[in-house]
Amino acid sequence: MKSRPMENEKKDWRFRLHEVIYESNTKAGKAFDVALLFAIFASIVVVMLDSVHSLHLRFGRLFNRAEWLFTALFTVEYILRLISIRRPWRYVFSLLGLIDLLALIPSYLSIVFVGAQSLLVFRAFRLLRIFRIFKLGEFLTEIHFLQQALKGSVRKISIFLLTVLTIAIILGSVMYLVEEKENGFSNIPESIYWAIVTITTVGYGDISPVTPIGKFVASIVMLIGYAIIAVPTGIITHDIALALKKRKELPEVCPSCAREGHDDDALFCKHCGSSLFR
Amino acid sequence: MKSRPMENEKKDWRFRLHEVIYESNTKAGKAFDVALLFAIFASIVVVMLDSVHSLHLRFGRLFNRAEWLFTALFTVEYILRLISIRRPWRYVFSLLGLIDLLALIPSYLSIVFVGAQSLLVFRAFRLLRIFRIFKLGEFLTEIHFLQQALKGSVRKISIFLLTVLTIAIILGSVMYLVEEKENGFSNIPESIYWAIVTITTVGYGDISPVTPIGKFVASIVMLIGYAIIAVPTGIITHDIALALKKRKELPEVCPSCAREGHDDDALFCKHCGSSLFR
Amino acid sequence: MKSRPMENEKKDWRFRLHEVIYESNTKAGKAFDVALLFAIFASIVVVMLDSVHSLHLRFGRLFNRAEWLFTALFTVEYILRLISIRRPWRYVFSLLGLIDLLALIPSYLSIVFVGAQSLLVFRAFRLLRIFRIFKLGEFLTEIHFLQQALKGSVRKISIFLLTVLTIAIILGSVMYLVEEKENGFSNIPESIYWAIVTITTVGYGDISPVTPIGKFVASIVMLIGYAIIAVPTGIITHDIALALKKRKELPEVCPSCAREGHDDDALFCKHCGSSLFR
Amino acid sequence: MKSRPMENEKKDWRFRLHEVIYESNTKAGKAFDVALLFAIFASIVVVMLDSVHSLHLRFGRLFNRAEWLFTALFTVEYILRLISIRRPWRYVFSLLGLIDLLALIPSYLSIVFVGAQSLLVFRAFRLLRIFRIFKLGEFLTEIHFLQQALKGSVRKISIFLLTVLTIAIILGSVMYLVEEKENGFSNIPESIYWAIVTITTVGYGDISPVTPIGKFVASIVMLIGYAIIAVPTGIITHDIALALKKRKELPEVCPSCAREGHDDDALFCKHCGSSLFR
Repeated sequence: MKSRPMENEKKDWRFRLHEVIYESNTKAGKAFDVALLFAIFASIVVVMLDSVHSLHLRFGRLFNRAEWLFTALFTVEYILRLISIRRPWRYVFSLLGLIDLLALIPSYLSIVFVGAQSLLVFRAFRLLRIFRIFKLGEFLTEIHFLQQALKGSVRKISIFLLTVLTIAIILGSVMYLVEEKENGFSNIPESIYWAIVTITTVGYGDISPVTPIGKFVASIVMLIGYAIIAVPTGIITHDIALALKKRKELPEVCPSCAREGHDDDALFCKHCGSSLFR
Repeated sequence: MKSRPMENEKKDWRFRLHEVIYESNTKAGKAFDVALLFAIFASIVVVMLDSVHSLHLRFGRLFNRAEWLFTALFTVEYILRLISIRRPWRYVFSLLGLIDLLALIPSYLSIVFVGAQSLLVFRAFRLLRIFRIFKLGEFLTEIHFLQQALKGSVRKISIFLLTVLTIAIILGSVMYLVEEKENGFSNIPESIYWAIVTITTVGYGDISPVTPIGKFVASIVMLIGYAIIAVPTGIITHDIALALKKRKELPEVCPSCAREGHDDDALFCKHCGSSLFR
Repeated sequence: MKSRPMENEKKDWRFRLHEVIYESNTKAGKAFDVALLFAIFASIVVVMLDSVHSLHLRFGRLFNRAEWLFTALFTVEYILRLISIRRPWRYVFSLLGLIDLLALIPSYLSIVFVGAQSLLVFRAFRLLRIFRIFKLGEFLTEIHFLQQALKGSVRKISIFLLTVLTIAIILGSVMYLVEEKENGFSNIPESIYWAIVTITTVGYGDISPVTPIGKFVASIVMLIGYAIIAVPTGIITHDIALALKKRKELPEVCPSCAREGHDDDALFCKHCGSSLFR
Repeated sequence: MKSRPMENEKKDWRFRLHEVIYESNTKAGKAFDVALLFAIFASIVVVMLDSVHSLHLRFGRLFNRAEWLFTALFTVEYILRLISIRRPWRYVFSLLGLIDLLALIPSYLSIVFVGAQSLLVFRAFRLLRIFRIFKLGEFLTEIHFLQQALKGSVRKISIFLLTVLTIAIILGSVMYLVEEKENGFSNIPESIYWAIVTITTVGYGDISPVTPIGKFVASIVMLIGYAIIAVPTGIITHDIALALKKRKELPEVCPSCAREGHDDDALFCKHCGSSLFR
């Protein structure tokens, strides 16, 4: 889309680079995206394996070289991204841009500060690029549909989570009064942590009530958690149904360019490329 | 809304105070509500941190002073609430009024009774005021919608929870017979506690079956719990869908004052302020 | 309803007794049902408390007397039930009749066999009578509605549970091969128990994978369990929606007696008393 | 269906054998399927019990003979399947064919390699034949309906699980940085395992946060897991509702053979036997 206004310009190397790196509707663009994701995944696997002590002792040097190789690769990618875009600062301060930078810094920091390398785990955030890959090919419809459905739920779910947190603070405070200090409920933050573990039905068991009165209160907390777990489900189910309805009632006229003639299963305007949703 | 009949009266300081403290549709009222919630939250954080032994040893005196500061603040707020309302007793015996009082008493009690200060955790209940804050601004629609949806579910969920409790009592009693006393199932209340922990899928693991027959019965209990967890979800999903339908069919005529002319997205009557829902 | 054909008979004491004990549409009948449920609940609480060792030592004799009192009471109730009904054997072999008998036998058995008293926990099954109490008064609509909704789900949920069991057997067998015997996966039934604990997201932690490969397989098992937990919910939500639709389309003509004139919110035919549902 | 083109051929023993083994619409075919499932179940029970050490010591030889008996039985069945079908290789390389073979090999391998017998647990996979049994008789409608409903969900659920996995990798990496190495978060794969255990609300408690900051991050992880557990439920509920709608709008004309005259509750064309669904 962004490449459209450039169409009539001379197709120089920067433009072609932009198309490969940022777009995914050309063959080269798709290949680049898939290759990049593999490189990200491989670099994370290296960081993962290096964190295992026994493997670090045996293959530590090999992992170190691989990490520097990936760092070099991602540095080149980062520079190419900078020079192939019109407004480099916009990319630098975008979410994906900041994550890309965050994935590079630890390696260079480790030259100066010993141990900074452990920050390499932030590379895991680059996995978020997987959602770009999803957009390739046949997954498009489902992803687009799910995104539309969940967009409407975010605010409702936030309110719900805030409510759960309030309930957890209140129930945790009550439990702090009720249960013995020695049984893990040694202070209020600890008790609130227990309340969250319980309401979400995770239930590690690292802290669990011991006295009869504590078990009684805990049973009530569990039943409450059991009943309210249904609320986010209800909200999301409802929003998915809503999104489906909208999908069926997709307008014949594009809401952006007002041109007609779209297929029944079209999700994007074939004239201007903008979403036909809402 | 309550201030409406006062409109033609002389706008004295008590009226303006009422507007700031109880209403939230003026700028001062909104600011007061937000500031109050911050004060509540800060006072709870102080109580929380004070409950951590290591922090209590180091900052105990500081926390104590902060707690008295907040107590003074909330006492002033409580008195202002009393003198700015027409029928003070009604506020005193309302739910929010009782919680406000409950948040003050422990501090004063601690002068006479050592240790009464630990009751300060009841301040957590004041967090319920967060639902008033929600009403401010843009969250209004979602909150109102969720409340409508859940109102219809309360009774059905209550029946469901009573049923789960009955099942837990029966299954707990059976497990008490089946499993060895030494493995944690030492008496029936304990076994019922285990059944609730299991059916709600919390699963602490503080009590878990050890004998083969016990594990067999527990597996059945888990599968039952797995199947019935779906019921409250189904109920709430259904009630949310129902509330949505109602929202769409909001009457053109206000059910309270029978006046017309409301916008499509209006949730409250613009003439009398009462809900257009049902 | 059963009392209807008797209406023209002489209203002798047996008939009136039947009305009090079996029916719940008269004042005396309602009072009897509520009183009975309280007696059942009290008798269960006594059995519960008696199972707690420390309480048994202190109040054992008191509990024993209370248990005999309740046994006498329930025996009288059982005899009254037998003589006030036309076909006593039908009641004896009905589900509720068998449970009523099961709640009596242990006490009398305990005279001959020491320890038989522990079977008194079966009294918990009498709590199922709570669903009769629900039918009293205002809960009727919700209970009736939920029953209709869930009736259609039973078969689908059964298939689902059988599928989950099959998956648990397969995954448990795989885990038995993969994980070390010493880590709790000592035999296949044990591994299947673990798989059920995991898929249902209970997660006691009494058995949990220790080796890397075991943790990897367990992660897959958990993600599978996470995904399929949605199926029963989907089924029940759908059936509740279906039941709601039916409720709205309740026929104007009773399907049993074909008479008309029912109110919009009527669930039962006002002429013959049979359900208007389906 | 496959037997149809053979109809005009001479009904030789191979054809009749095919009908019994592969089809389930004749009496003999149904009986064979049920008997086979019982044999599979019995053979799995034997493998299960043999894996229990104490039982192996007492009945080991008996179990060994039973295993060889079942192996012989299944070998005969496998050979009959091969000779009664037109294209044997197609069956051999089908999913069910491979599972059938996998269930035979371990026994024969155990003659050469000691211990290969433990692979007999793969027989559990033959339980998947239970879904064929389901198709017999009255469960047909529900199974067919559920299959249709879930078919549409598979792709969406896959995307969802991939997303959960990405979130687990990111959160696990963050937790590795935040929590002490001694508390179980000794390396990144271990931390990711913990994140999956937590997000899916299984919560074994074998690894759980110990430091305050770790508990804080864990609480956030739990609340996230609590909120997103609703997504697959929403998807499946929606797809079940969709399948139901389709079921109601079943075409009057068979999509395969274009002949009419089907009953309202028909799921398959009565002329050609193919599904009327879509």
